[in-house]
Amino acid sequence: MSTLADFVSQVHRVIDNALDEIIPKEDVAPTRLHEAIRWSVFAGGKRIRPALLIAAGETFGAERAALINCAASVEMIHTYSLIHDDLPSMDDDDLRRGRATCHKQFDEATAILAGDVLQTLAFKAIATDENLSAEKRIKLITLLADAAGTPLGMVAGQQLDLDAEGETLSLSALENIHRQKTGALITASAVAGAIIGEANEDELTAIQSFAAKLGLLFQITDDLLDVTQETASLGKTAGKDVAAAKATYPSHYGVEKSHEFATQICTEACDELAAITRDTSLLSGLAEMIATRKR
Amino acid sequence: MSTLADFVSQVHRVIDNALDEIIPKEDVAPTRLHEAIRWSVFAGGKRIRPALLIAAGETFGAERAALINCAASVEMIHTYSLIHDDLPSMDDDDLRRGRATCHKQFDEATAILAGDVLQTLAFKAIATDENLSAEKRIKLITLLADAAGTPLGMVAGQQLDLDAEGETLSLSALENIHRQKTGALITASAVAGAIIGEANEDELTAIQSFAAKLGLLFQITDDLLDVTQETASLGKTAGKDVAAAKATYPSHYGVEKSHEFATQICTEACDELAAITRDTSLLSGLAEMIATRKR
Repeated sequence: MSTLADFVSQVHRVIDNALDEIIPKEDVAPTRLHEAIRWSVFAGGKRIRPALLIAAGETFGAERAALINCAASVEMIHTYSLIHDDLPSMDDDDLRRGRATCHKQFDEATAILAGDVLQTLAFKAIATDENLSAEKRIKLITLLADAAGTPLGMVAGQQLDLDAEGETLSLSALENIHRQKTGALITASAVAGAIIGEANEDELTAIQSFAAKLGLLFQITDDLLDVTQETASLGKTAGKDVAAAKATYPSHYGVEKSHEFATQICTEACDELAAITRDTSLLSGLAEMIATRKR
Repeated sequence: MSTLADFVSQVHRVIDNALDEIIPKEDVAPTRLHEAIRWSVFAGGKRIRPALLIAAGETFGAERAALINCAASVEMIHTYSLIHDDLPSMDDDDLRRGRATCHKQFDEATAILAGDVLQTLAFKAIATDENLSAEKRIKLITLLADAAGTPLGMVAGQQLDLDAEGETLSLSALENIHRQKTGALITASAVAGAIIGEANEDELTAIQSFAAKLGLLFQITDDLLDVTQETASLGKTAGKDVAAAKATYPSHYGVEKSHEFATQICTEACDELAAITRDTSLLSGLAEMIATRKR
């Protein structure tokens, strides 16, 4: 298990270095914009998506150097979505990753622009990655655009979530929202790594199934943390789902049953890896890490 | 002159058809998101950037089919920026292209998401354009990401504009903001067309110089229209710059002198085309059209 911990902390360092290279420094004009971007990007995110992307890539023998920019891109897309989701007209949250949200620390307009341009930087980082062939870059940009976009990606999921406010959702409607809002980018992260590692069609299918379940697992544990953890340890406002009477796994199943469900989904996710005749211990390790995470 | 008018109205039709293909229909879930995108995209924009891109491309012999997706992408990036610029925390405007702004017609959260995903769709439309080689797609995505992004692109310009609120700007500071906020995407549009048409280095330089002046010309005429036109004919709130005590060309030079300056810049722009040994009448025609535009 120490190998996994090493891997995760190593990825954290590598990705933070890459992000520091990609994002203009705080003293480059417009300084306020770059300060705001860096405030949110270097707020202590867990870098789960980059870890997943790099783990998937290395499972198929990809060079680390060919995975880094794409992994940083996924993290930038994720961070842009957090900045916009936290805005007053969306989830209206003051705390994220243990510190003030971007619009609280700066202002709404700056936060909107910081999110906007993080998306731009994400696509540019892939487009200019000389460790990848032009064909691969195109494939990865398309994959991430679908995952981040509409009608089946992240932004579409956020819109469905907004539209459902105040409504009682069925569990399948709820799962559909999560599949788009959270699951699509998580799944794309793993698939991106596998594409860079030149996995074959069967392997891609297995990775996709694994990661789709991982996305669901991530959401169940997210819901559980919201009801079982304190704001301080969570780094974002706890108890929000209950306060907003939001449909969640614990509200549907109860806490105990949700834990069981998480364990089951984790097992199912890892079972998908059986179709891959490679050492997949890093990927299954990440799944277990997500299942047992405390924040 | 009728050839130019034909070209412009033809481009309008072609681009609207392409946008209609690219953007999910209003009955595709999440319907509210797609309605909002279409509300803003099909609001009667002038399609100046696509016209410029296609004119530049055809000047160098590019096939129309290879230009359309990229031209639609530029228009999507432009429209995303308008939707976000009009938000209450930015310019707080109710009227755009003759109708309610996106957040007035829908709501703020939906408008933010509509803008976000228009950017995503723009990059995807280029990444998936089978009329272009993978290398060209990569080059175009990089070009547009720089033009739309930071530190020298559109979003950076918008941040500079926000930061300057309430301050008295020098004309060079003002021009710098415009060069990024408006000029960068206009310049990139022309350059993108030239790249698709495989213009050589000297030709690219000439096109870039031409389009940079065109961007400036566009801004001067924009400022002039703000003071000389009524809201009804303009399709957006007139007199805003004066009300906001904003530094503009008319406020610096006066209306009469600004008109003279516009004529001069138009001539200078067209002079840049002399370096290109092709029929550039379409490009110079567009410059004159912008110089004399009424909205």
